[in-house]
Amino acid sequence: MAQVTKGEETRAAILATAVDIASVEGLEGLTIGRLAAELDMSKSGLFGHFGSKEGLQLATIEAAREIFIHEVVNPARQAETGLARLWALCDAWLSYMEREVFSGGCFFMAASLEFDGRPGPVREAIAANMQEWLSYLESAARKAQERGELAVDITPKQIAFELHAFYLAANWARQLLGDTQAANRARVAILNRLNSLTTVMAPPLPGAAQYQT
Amino acid sequence: MAQVTKGEETRAAILATAVDIASVEGLEGLTIGRLAAELDMSKSGLFGHFGSKEGLQLATIEAAREIFIHEVVNPARQAETGLARLWALCDAWLSYMEREVFSGGCFFMAASLEFDGRPGPVREAIAANMQEWLSYLESAARKAQERGELAVDITPKQIAFELHAFYLAANWARQLLGDTQAANRARVAILNRLNSLTTVMAPPLPGAAQYQT
Repeated sequence: MAQVTKGEETRAAILATAVDIASVEGLEGLTIGRLAAELDMSKSGLFGHFGSKEGLQLATIEAAREIFIHEVVNPARQAETGLARLWALCDAWLSYMEREVFSGGCFFMAASLEFDGRPGPVREAIAANMQEWLSYLESAARKAQERGELAVDITPKQIAFELHAFYLAANWARQLLGDTQAANRARVAILNRLNSLTTVMAPPLPGAAQYQT
Repeated sequence: MAQVTKGEETRAAILATAVDIASVEGLEGLTIGRLAAELDMSKSGLFGHFGSKEGLQLATIEAAREIFIHEVVNPARQAETGLARLWALCDAWLSYMEREVFSGGCFFMAASLEFDGRPGPVREAIAANMQEWLSYLESAARKAQERGELAVDITPKQIAFELHAFYLAANWARQLLGDTQAANRARVAILNRLNSLTTVMAPPLPGAAQYQT
C-alpha cells in the first residue's frame, strides 16, 4: 500500500473543500483567495500546492473524478456484468445525486456548462472526463447486448445517450426547480426504456412502479 | 399595431447583443461595461436603459424568452393539436439548437446551470421561464392523450420530463463534446419514445431511421 504523506493528506483535504465550493459557485469562482479564506490558510501556502488558479481548477476536477468513481463506479461493480451492471450504474449515479455528495449538485454537470464556451486545458479536462464516463456507460450497454440481454437494433452509443439524458434532466430539475422527486422520475424513465429493450435472457429489473411519483 | 419607438428599437438591438454575450459567457459575464464595449456605447447610456446589472440580466432573460417563442413555439403552432403538435414542438426546439440561434448554445440551459445555486430575482426569472416551458410541453402531451393518440398509463409530466431530457443531453453533447449529430440522436430517442406510446388513433410520426446517426 502506498504511503500517504502529510502533504498528500493536506492536499486531499484542501481539494475536498475546493470541489464543494466549485459545485456551488462554479470553477471560475474557485480562486486561490476564495479557497484560502474558506480554509483559513495563507494564499502563499495554497500557491505552493497548486501553482496557479488553473492548476487548482485541474486538481479539483481530478479530485471530483475520484469521488465519482468511489461513489458511483465502485459500488456498481458489485452487480453482475451486463444489464444488471448497467442498471446498478444508473441507480448509483442517481443515488449520488440524491445524497448530495457535492453541495451544489453534480460537479461535472455544472462544470460542463460553465466551460463549454471557454477553450483551454480546463475545458479539455472536463470534456475528457465526461467522454470517459459516456464511454463507460456505452461499454456496459454493449456488454449487455453481447450477453443477449438487450436488443441489438439500437447502438450502445444511443443507449448511453438516453440514460445520460435522464440523469442530466433529473439533476437540472432538482437544482433549478427544487424537484426532489426528479431522481425517481429518471429511474422510471430508465427502467421503462431498458425494459422496452430486454430479451428473454435478461435478468429481472426492479419494477418502475415503485419509483412512480 | 403598437408603434415601435426609436427607444424601443435601440433597446431591442442592445438586448439581442446581450442575449448573445450571455449565451457564450454567462449572465454573470454580462456586465454593463462589457456590453458597452461590445456595442461601442457609453456605460451611462446603458444605465439609462436598464438601471443596474440585475436590470440588464432580467431584461436579457425576457428578450431570450421572446426569441424562443418566435423560433420554437410559433412554428409548431402550424401543426394540428395533439401528437402532431407535440412532435412539431420537439423538432422545432432541436432545430433552434442546430441553427445556433444563440452563439453559445441554448441560452436557458446555460443560465439555469449558472444560477441554480444563486438565489435572487435572476434565478427566479430563469426558473419561472423553464417551468413555463415544461408546463407547455406537459399540456401538449395531455392534449395528445385526451385525443386518444397517446397511452394514458404515463403521466403528461413524465412525458415532458423525458422529452426535455433528450433535448438537454443533445445541447450538452453539442456544446461540450462538439457532437454535431447530437440533435439527431435526440430525435431518434424522442420518436422511439413517442412511438412506444402511440395508439391506433395517432397520426403518423416521421420514421426514426432517417435520423439514425
